Amino acid sequence: MIYTYHTNGELTIANIGEFVNLRGWVQKSRHLGGLIFIDLRDRFGITQLVIRPDNPFYEQALLIKSEYVLAVAGLVVERESKNMNMKTGEIEINIQELYILNTSDTPPIIVADHTDALEETRLKYRYLDLRRPVMQNFLIKRHEIMQSIRHVLVTEGFYELDTPILGKSTPEGARDYLVPSRLYAGHFYALPQSPQLYKQLFMIAGFEKYFQIAKCFRDEDLRADRQPEFTQVDIELSFTTEEDIRALTERILKYTFKRVLNEDIETPFRMMTYEEARETYGSDKPDLRYDLKIEDYKSILKNSDIPLFDGKEYIKGIRISQSHVLSRKKIDQLSLIVKKNHGEALTYIKYADGQLSGSIAKFIDEKTIAALQLKDDEMIFIVPGRKRDVLDALGALRIEIAKQFQLLDPNVYKFLWVIDFPLFEYNEEEDRLVAQHHPFTAPQHIEAMKMHPETALAKAYDVVLNGYELGGGSIRIHSQDVQESMFSLLGLSEYDIKERFGFFVEALKYGTPPHGGIALGLDRIVMLMTHTTNIKDVIAFPKTQSAKDQMMQAPSEVDIKQIDELHLKVSE
Amino acid sequence: MIYTYHTNGELTIANIGEFVNLRGWVQKSRHLGGLIFIDLRDRFGITQLVIRPDNPFYEQALLIKSEYVLAVAGLVVERESKNMNMKTGEIEINIQELYILNTSDTPPIIVADHTDALEETRLKYRYLDLRRPVMQNFLIKRHEIMQSIRHVLVTEGFYELDTPILGKSTPEGARDYLVPSRLYAGHFYALPQSPQLYKQLFMIAGFEKYFQIAKCFRDEDLRADRQPEFTQVDIELSFTTEEDIRALTERILKYTFKRVLNEDIETPFRMMTYEEARETYGSDKPDLRYDLKIEDYKSILKNSDIPLFDGKEYIKGIRISQSHVLSRKKIDQLSLIVKKNHGEALTYIKYADGQLSGSIAKFIDEKTIAALQLKDDEMIFIVPGRKRDVLDALGALRIEIAKQFQLLDPNVYKFLWVIDFPLFEYNEEEDRLVAQHHPFTAPQHIEAMKMHPETALAKAYDVVLNGYELGGGSIRIHSQDVQESMFSLLGLSEYDIKERFGFFVEALKYGTPPHGGIALGLDRIVMLMTHTTNIKDVIAFPKTQSAKDQMMQAPSEVDIKQIDELHLKVSE
Repeated sequence: MIYTYHTNGELTIANIGEFVNLRGWVQKSRHLGGLIFIDLRDRFGITQLVIRPDNPFYEQALLIKSEYVLAVAGLVVERESKNMNMKTGEIEINIQELYILNTSDTPPIIVADHTDALEETRLKYRYLDLRRPVMQNFLIKRHEIMQSIRHVLVTEGFYELDTPILGKSTPEGARDYLVPSRLYAGHFYALPQSPQLYKQLFMIAGFEKYFQIAKCFRDEDLRADRQPEFTQVDIELSFTTEEDIRALTERILKYTFKRVLNEDIETPFRMMTYEEARETYGSDKPDLRYDLKIEDYKSILKNSDIPLFDGKEYIKGIRISQSHVLSRKKIDQLSLIVKKNHGEALTYIKYADGQLSGSIAKFIDEKTIAALQLKDDEMIFIVPGRKRDVLDALGALRIEIAKQFQLLDPNVYKFLWVIDFPLFEYNEEEDRLVAQHHPFTAPQHIEAMKMHPETALAKAYDVVLNGYELGGGSIRIHSQDVQESMFSLLGLSEYDIKERFGFFVEALKYGTPPHGGIALGLDRIVMLMTHTTNIKDVIAFPKTQSAKDQMMQAPSEVDIKQIDELHLKVSE
Repeated sequence: MIYTYHTNGELTIANIGEFVNLRGWVQKSRHLGGLIFIDLRDRFGITQLVIRPDNPFYEQALLIKSEYVLAVAGLVVERESKNMNMKTGEIEINIQELYILNTSDTPPIIVADHTDALEETRLKYRYLDLRRPVMQNFLIKRHEIMQSIRHVLVTEGFYELDTPILGKSTPEGARDYLVPSRLYAGHFYALPQSPQLYKQLFMIAGFEKYFQIAKCFRDEDLRADRQPEFTQVDIELSFTTEEDIRALTERILKYTFKRVLNEDIETPFRMMTYEEARETYGSDKPDLRYDLKIEDYKSILKNSDIPLFDGKEYIKGIRISQSHVLSRKKIDQLSLIVKKNHGEALTYIKYADGQLSGSIAKFIDEKTIAALQLKDDEMIFIVPGRKRDVLDALGALRIEIAKQFQLLDPNVYKFLWVIDFPLFEYNEEEDRLVAQHHPFTAPQHIEAMKMHPETALAKAYDVVLNGYELGGGSIRIHSQDVQESMFSLLGLSEYDIKERFGFFVEALKYGTPPHGGIALGLDRIVMLMTHTTNIKDVIAFPKTQSAKDQMMQAPSEVDIKQIDELHLKVSE
């Protein structure tokens, strides 16, 4: 008899009569009328095994528990009671030989899609959490997405080139992770926040088309969707334009969505200026799956004499229908969200059953009501204040309302390019301009940058999907003069420039081609394509929000000898 | 007129009459009889441009120097004097429009295959060094090799899964690079020396087939062919055997050599036990491009009464013909090499023109001469001493002789599997057994490991090419008991095991499948496939032998605030 190896996800009625070998983990084992039924699981699926009492392996099979590892040989037969919900549901394997390759203690997590386990337990036993099919799917999709993205880039003549992890600390932006040097006391390497300088150096070196799926590091206090190390698809090309790079990005995403999800996404993506995105959606990464636009109410309400609105720069709001869905309690929660996002106050006016209500209702006269054109069951949330605060607050409010009204369909993909970003933003804490993207971004007009930096626009673009920034890029500065002006506008002294970026400014002197690129956040792309909102789901071994590896217990204390060798002491 | 973009490596006589756009760097510019000739270079090649005196861009073209960046438009015409050595040598471009995209200072390195620049200069101006076509080729081949290896693995159903760079320090083997934690004072992450534990955890998690092209880190004093960070093709699979993994590795290498170099390499590779490799070639990674086998002379010389040989465990040697090639001076050099490699002494006997000579000639009688069967112009180098020392010394001597006789043809590829490695080796310094591969390697026989660890063999294998270890792997321990025995044989206390590997020993309890894998050194593979002996050539931004980045000047001093935040002080 010839036995052939199969996975646990493939045998069907077409294989009846075949002798097969299978391997995998015991999903469960049942005894029924003297027979032993075992569900054998691998990454492809589950197959049912049957061991009869006259089988020489029967005694051994009695010992089998969940998560034991088995190798079996048997005959594919038709099941009596079929399960049409699974691919292998019409057959079972009549076992002839059965070997226990390994045993298992009772696992602290049940290996099934649904879990009640605490996140802490799941992270501690990550290797068991990852055995759950739903979790395996996240990483398998991640793999497929990586291959698809790479396929497009390699096919289009990009070189995959890798850059150092042990680099130089050039603090400008986020905090670096440092690596103490053993050979040079008091000296440190830094882990890269991105391969930005390296990729520009590849352009200077004449490689013309570069990409890398690169690990990047930021030692920042983590938010829910941030990890200390993350992966970006880093792309750079020479002799290019914003349009070229946007079209390339669209080809990458279109191919990947088709290949991995069989989704046809429409290109070119919609484009929107930063200004419009902020004014209309209160965000530089608006979710366009729903409308809920921000509208101006200043002119309509200017005569209403509402104390809170008095002398305010911005008076803007969002109108919603079906306002009965929002209870008083929910409105209070929305109010908190507005305040957390720098809004002075959340006011509203509501019209229902011929009645006007809400915190500003009493200030509104007949004429204003008419101008507001309120329909039955409609309400308008209005936030007064400084431009930036109002837009931040309404942007956050918009997202929360969309959640309340369940407008976030993960199967709808609304792509968008946000363009015409400001080159700089003003940092209040440091009282100086900082780069909105990074200090290598080219201005749209060099003179405008020098004369009116606060309002100068950048040759920068972000690709946005469903309210998430998938990636961002820019045309880079390729002239030494402009790069030096940029650094001085950022307040760097000659000394700082030389110390931190001296080699790079030098490099720009020797025939640097015009170039630009983009970096796509791989983790976010995988998250959106697998419809999870937890970034930990798409990273094999993630850290907690306090940057800890729960499984390995890292960071950890180390031998004092190791610290000594690095010429360091831990301070109290 | 329609202009189409072309590279500088593709236009031929077939394109005559076409209007083309080209971009690139000025290789050189010459004035000849009023005409300006410019060689324009990009990653694909060089194309000759001609600008005539009546051209409106002529004045501008006069300013052009080497490494300027140009965009041009013109007509493809036939050259008068052809250069049949280059693909574009039959044509030139009659320039109509010419734009200087960037200028260049005189570069400190000439952008040409041949360079006289010092390595320090080349590393400092790496972006210019990488503009040299010979250097571009190294990285382009690296890219191609990576794609080919990945192609085989993805096609065979392996998942590419990435693992953390911020891991846990588990000192056992080389020194870790540490990353101080800001959130936990006195705690450190470690950069991975390899993803060994992670890949085994992927097997425990049921992924069955994993690979990753992974960055690995070792803070060791560097040898010429070592870098502090290096890249390995990391592979692991479940339900596998040594034979499976060797065959997979052969498929990867066969495909890659064919695809990248159009070389047909023969599989399966030859296999040799560790014992045979050591005894016959004095190495666990013998170069089989040449013979020069080590032979035993103990029995022949046992009666010769040579004082140096008296009571020695091993008396072995290498026989060479054409010994006249080796001058007295060269023999002295060989003697030094033997001593550097733990050899007590290099003795020899030589037969030429009917004369016997050499350091031990006077001890040799007629009968022994006959037994040695020396032919004319032959000599035998003999080293006496302890087994290990003799083999080390003769292994080094063998390589040096091969160099002297120019037996190292880089176009010949001699692959080899070395198998049956010892599980442990005795570390004299620490007076204990250490793992020959690593502590997760399965023994060939569990009982042998427990009873006679010093002689126990491992399920381990190295793939060797032309004297370099391309990679190594093993079947892993998948039983918790055996793993714990292994740790105790290595002298780890219960406490150590728990602290360092507790989570892993725990993981082995929950249905760990039998598994194994291999790691291939990508940098070495690229080195051998591009025929360079300098590992820096195949890494985009390498470190010096003292682990320094000459271009960026890393490691560097950092702001005291950064060190404070990490709860550290630099000690004096």
